Amino acid sequence: MGRCAVLILVGSRSDREVMAETERTLEWFGVSSELVVASAHREPEKVRALARKARERGVRVIVAAAGMAAHLAGAVASHTTLPVVGVPLMSEPFGALDSLLSIVQMPPGVPVGVVSAGRAGAVNAALLAVEILALTDRSLARKLEQYRKGLAAEKPEQTK
Amino acid sequence: MGRCAVLILVGSRSDREVMAETERTLEWFGVSSELVVASAHREPEKVRALARKARERGVRVIVAAAGMAAHLAGAVASHTTLPVVGVPLMSEPFGALDSLLSIVQMPPGVPVGVVSAGRAGAVNAALLAVEILALTDRSLARKLEQYRKGLAAEKPEQTK
Amino acid sequence: MGRCAVLILVGSRSDREVMAETERTLEWFGVSSELVVASAHREPEKVRALARKARERGVRVIVAAAGMAAHLAGAVASHTTLPVVGVPLMSEPFGALDSLLSIVQMPPGVPVGVVSAGRAGAVNAALLAVEILALTDRSLARKLEQYRKGLAAEKPEQTK
Amino acid sequence: MGRCAVLILVGSRSDREVMAETERTLEWFGVSSELVVASAHREPEKVRALARKARERGVRVIVAAAGMAAHLAGAVASHTTLPVVGVPLMSEPFGALDSLLSIVQMPPGVPVGVVSAGRAGAVNAALLAVEILALTDRSLARKLEQYRKGLAAEKPEQTK
Amino acid sequence: MGRCAVLILVGSRSDREVMAETERTLEWFGVSSELVVASAHREPEKVRALARKARERGVRVIVAAAGMAAHLAGAVASHTTLPVVGVPLMSEPFGALDSLLSIVQMPPGVPVGVVSAGRAGAVNAALLAVEILALTDRSLARKLEQYRKGLAAEKPEQTK
Amino acid sequence: MGRCAVLILVGSRSDREVMAETERTLEWFGVSSELVVASAHREPEKVRALARKARERGVRVIVAAAGMAAHLAGAVASHTTLPVVGVPLMSEPFGALDSLLSIVQMPPGVPVGVVSAGRAGAVNAALLAVEILALTDRSLARKLEQYRKGLAAEKPEQTK
Amino acid sequence: MGRCAVLILVGSRSDREVMAETERTLEWFGVSSELVVASAHREPEKVRALARKARERGVRVIVAAAGMAAHLAGAVASHTTLPVVGVPLMSEPFGALDSLLSIVQMPPGVPVGVVSAGRAGAVNAALLAVEILALTDRSLARKLEQYRKGLAAEKPEQTK
Amino acid sequence: MGRCAVLILVGSRSDREVMAETERTLEWFGVSSELVVASAHREPEKVRALARKARERGVRVIVAAAGMAAHLAGAVASHTTLPVVGVPLMSEPFGALDSLLSIVQMPPGVPVGVVSAGRAGAVNAALLAVEILALTDRSLARKLEQYRKGLAAEKPEQTK
Repeated sequence: MGRCAVLILVGSRSDREVMAETERTLEWFGVSSELVVASAHREPEKVRALARKARERGVRVIVAAAGMAAHLAGAVASHTTLPVVGVPLMSEPFGALDSLLSIVQMPPGVPVGVVSAGRAGAVNAALLAVEILALTDRSLARKLEQYRKGLAAEKPEQTK
Repeated sequence: MGRCAVLILVGSRSDREVMAETERTLEWFGVSSELVVASAHREPEKVRALARKARERGVRVIVAAAGMAAHLAGAVASHTTLPVVGVPLMSEPFGALDSLLSIVQMPPGVPVGVVSAGRAGAVNAALLAVEILALTDRSLARKLEQYRKGLAAEKPEQTK
Repeated sequence: MGRCAVLILVGSRSDREVMAETERTLEWFGVSSELVVASAHREPEKVRALARKARERGVRVIVAAAGMAAHLAGAVASHTTLPVVGVPLMSEPFGALDSLLSIVQMPPGVPVGVVSAGRAGAVNAALLAVEILALTDRSLARKLEQYRKGLAAEKPEQTK
Repeated sequence: MGRCAVLILVGSRSDREVMAETERTLEWFGVSSELVVASAHREPEKVRALARKARERGVRVIVAAAGMAAHLAGAVASHTTLPVVGVPLMSEPFGALDSLLSIVQMPPGVPVGVVSAGRAGAVNAALLAVEILALTDRSLARKLEQYRKGLAAEKPEQTK
Repeated sequence: MGRCAVLILVGSRSDREVMAETERTLEWFGVSSELVVASAHREPEKVRALARKARERGVRVIVAAAGMAAHLAGAVASHTTLPVVGVPLMSEPFGALDSLLSIVQMPPGVPVGVVSAGRAGAVNAALLAVEILALTDRSLARKLEQYRKGLAAEKPEQTK
Repeated sequence: MGRCAVLILVGSRSDREVMAETERTLEWFGVSSELVVASAHREPEKVRALARKARERGVRVIVAAAGMAAHLAGAVASHTTLPVVGVPLMSEPFGALDSLLSIVQMPPGVPVGVVSAGRAGAVNAALLAVEILALTDRSLARKLEQYRKGLAAEKPEQTK
Repeated sequence: MGRCAVLILVGSRSDREVMAETERTLEWFGVSSELVVASAHREPEKVRALARKARERGVRVIVAAAGMAAHLAGAVASHTTLPVVGVPLMSEPFGALDSLLSIVQMPPGVPVGVVSAGRAGAVNAALLAVEILALTDRSLARKLEQYRKGLAAEKPEQTK
Repeated sequence: MGRCAVLILVGSRSDREVMAETERTLEWFGVSSELVVASAHREPEKVRALARKARERGVRVIVAAAGMAAHLAGAVASHTTLPVVGVPLMSEPFGALDSLLSIVQMPPGVPVGVVSAGRAGAVNAALLAVEILALTDRSLARKLEQYRKGLAAEKPEQTK
């Protein structure tokens, strides 16, 4: 695997569609990313390896999205001290109540920063990653300001 | 570590008190067990090692109890094909809604059998383990029948 | 009725479709099963008889699936000391919150091991039963390992 | 057992205290009742026998109160066509959400009439039973009217 | 208005379709009923008049069905000492959680017996009413037994 | 009864303590009020009379506070076109989920404006009433501005 | 911007359709209104300016509708002492539980009056505003009485 | 105000005690912080000013903690493109369900990273901030590794 600033992990193939929004948003900001399917429960070794090698690959932020008993973000966070952003995805029959509580209620010591459920979260995970990267990248910081002004101008393609 | 039939894992030191009920119930049936504190998030390597080595140590059933974003049972199940019994524990402010959904909503492929939340679950996790062991142990099967009859007779010390 | 290793009970005819997944998964492992429609509330005598005769018919694990006030698994468990696996099924308007809580919150003394709600649970109920049977069946244990590796390889037909 | 108009069943010894309110309220109306501890899960045969023999003992209404996966009212209703009144009792950690959904969400064909959770329900179960009995007892009907007027007058001992 | 044994009240015109199931079930038992649309909030005087005159019209049981802040059953119960059966109906966005809690959580002193949400409740409200009427009608009691046996025989038209 | 600008209704005696906060807040603004205990279910005639006569008594806003199946605000609103402010009160075992949904989910046509649950709502009900009265009372409007500035200054006695 | 009695704010373009019901209802009463899209999070300055200038523009009541983390009503209320009516809108995956709790649970000191979720709330927000305006407008008060009578007559176009 | 790396905002004075945990954790890492009480609803101007001036004061991460309709984190996020970490605090009667949903369900465009509710979140908010700062501070990164190892060693003072 090559280098990228943001590593996007999704728990199953079917989660890729919604998280493509994260990729698109990061691309808009010119931030490199890679999306990998890796289930915390079906592929624990793969998740462990991805989390452990992320920092040396140049990854700065890991976004982890999953539904149901969504352990992916927590599993990643247990193997790294990089910032981990969790996205609770929807599934039947509990909507995203199961994934939200499974991601957000981390015990003290191992943090995950959780954004909105579903598509809104897919966008916001990218933006939170950009905000973090922009702390040491003035050009990115300016682009963020520009993006926000675009929101305020209510350009329909951004405000859904 | 030595051999035992049932391995009881708890996510934090403070969970030991409630899960001592599991130990006591197994002891009543003469089933060997060991209780280990191992956090899925703070000690992923310990949990992984415990799960991977359980079968060769003679463990037949693993009971995993945790609160909040209770990933312990799922993390264990991701590393073994032994039957895993999950116990959702209570914590503020979501009671056991967070731990129940975090334990029970496993994706297809990696099962966990979840019992009641809290103390009732601590007892029932032991009984479910005994029921599994009793499938090939007639003496244990008889003890189970005896235990059930004791319940039906409403002996106060058993029916709370 | 003939002999089978796993008895699958469903609360109503309309539940058969989702639980056919349990049958298919057991069949993949070469484990014999029989699916019977029996409502805890409309046919209590049938449920009682099925539960009481299961052990002598060679049944090792009973899977019970129901929606709404899902008493089926608990009713079965009250009449047997075989391991009972419960599957909460979905129905309007409470999704599976009613069936999950109705199945999982068993009182101390009578355990049920509950898996995920709906289709994921239908698969996992079969897998949990296989894990139990594999404790004394090396060939089955090897098949389980093989199945897990298939999951890790993300074969699309298994990972939904 | 002797004859009584209302049979009050509770799932465990610890439920007797709150349901004594049902007994007291029935006594105020001069309606005979008997309170029996019988767990749907620990004593299914006892519950079955009580439900099946109730009509011939002169019972007109059965009140069933339980917490957690509260199957008692449904189990009773599955064995009788007498009116069954269910009272969801509270327990940790789900309050009465588990017992309410477990009692109220009966499948079509086997009704249970559910009253408020906890102590309010203990009173109202008695009153609903009295309303049913008063349909063919003018003296009881008059007492009911009198009771209601007492409520309207806000006598503190009745309005808590 | 004429005489009928069961008065069925619904909170809005759109609720008539689901509650027609109550009418059909009562008709199967030969029990007379009348369905009236009367909103507790838009037509409080109509509801009050219906409740107050019900007994003298020969009504023995009132079934009240409503969605959202479902006050209809409680409003009726506040004006009569006839048995009132409540049916929580579904509506967006809270499913039937709002109507269930609004109907079931009556204060001590004014009971409502609540059945399942939606269509299952529409059937069970009729059956509970029939069970009440059958206490003093042997022919009806026999029909109830016959109906139950039909359920146990799993005739598809009854078990959905 | 005399004249007052705000009529405060509470469903039971035990609700008076928390709603005294409403009285105190109104008093701070010099707005007259009267607190009356009137249960929607136990005293429907009293509630109806209070609601119907409120306007001619000079009442401008009615505050209605209740717990459980909290029909009081809706019952009042069904009898008046004065603005009705609802306060969901807490009770076991559903906290204020039952009262909140019972008050807020009014059908189209009969509005209730609901404030926060419990003590915060007791204060805010008074403030909303004052905001309404201040629309045509400049002195009151000035007092409101002054009150808000006090909040901003974080005077401990106001910000809890 | 011109003068209007009721200012309707919605959090996003997609919310305009449901809140057009508020406009239509106000129009039926001859009350002037203006609907503006202004997001509390994407356009905080616009929301602040709208809230601060509302009183001098003649606005008497502000209706604020939003979904998800619905801060719009609270943000408006933090900048004005005009009465603010909040409408929780629906969105996936939490229905309106997120928006309802986000709007209604205001801290003591800054009130919002919340109406039903979704379309019912869109109508009731208009009616609550009219009730407030009608306190000092006899003609409007008469129209309200007329509207209510129309509801009682169950004219289908009003009762949905 | 002086310079600090992490600005901690709390919605009310009573929230300071739990968030002192955030201060203590940051202090352990040698990261400067300042805790300010600022209510989104009672002091919108103060919150706005704090958020707008944070970057120029050297703030890198803002932690915002609040209960009930917890708009603080979102209000801050609407005024800055610095990373904002939200902590849902508990309050009666909704535990932290209201604050969690109010903080996490941000619309697309304005992200907040939410950590666990209550005290666990107070610790994790600090750790997430440290993880972000450590991206460009090797010494801090080493300290984080050391902290994690301490967790794994289960030192009681850290694992509660």
